[in-house]
Amino acid sequence: MTTNLLANLPSNLPDELFTTLLEVTNLRIERIVSHGHSSPEGFWYDQDQHEWVVVLQGAAQLSIEGATKELKPGDHIKIPAHQKHRVEWTTPDEPTVWLAVFYGEAKS
Amino acid sequence: MTTNLLANLPSNLPDELFTTLLEVTNLRIERIVSHGHSSPEGFWYDQDQHEWVVVLQGAAQLSIEGATKELKPGDHIKIPAHQKHRVEWTTPDEPTVWLAVFYGEAKS
Repeated sequence: MTTNLLANLPSNLPDELFTTLLEVTNLRIERIVSHGHSSPEGFWYDQDQHEWVVVLQGAAQLSIEGATKELKPGDHIKIPAHQKHRVEWTTPDEPTVWLAVFYGEAKS
Repeated sequence: MTTNLLANLPSNLPDELFTTLLEVTNLRIERIVSHGHSSPEGFWYDQDQHEWVVVLQGAAQLSIEGATKELKPGDHIKIPAHQKHRVEWTTPDEPTVWLAVFYGEAKS
């Protein structure tokens, strides 16, 4: 009935791990596990949906249109649709677990 | 730009603390802080919206239409609209922090 967002984290993670926890019209809740990952050089996310994201474990730095923001567990941030952002780093010391809520109209 | 969901938790909490983090049409993200609280005797939540909820800190037990479910940090659960539920207990040892996502049409 439940699974735990922080349990059984993979110890070897070549790529970031994206798990959809809930998906209904105009709403998706996703767990993302990073382990030292960052966005590729020069890559910026540019999303049709708004995103509200919180770090549950680990640490990360986001760039959001020029500004940078460090996130530790409990820190959350809202990223409006089409606000360009990227992950500058996630800590190599442990997995970083994000909980992301994507909402608003998803264009295809 | 961000506030932390786990920082500056009140040490004295006569009532549960509800903080709306995000509210748009058919979606509300809320932080709930409990500290030994439970639902009043005989009280059951009966909500128009669906709820997806995760415990971030502490521990709790829910009753959901007869079944009970213990939740520790990282445990999450989906409670469909109008599925009756109540909080049987939250740990008295520390604040319990819930992150709740309410979604779907909210009737007034």
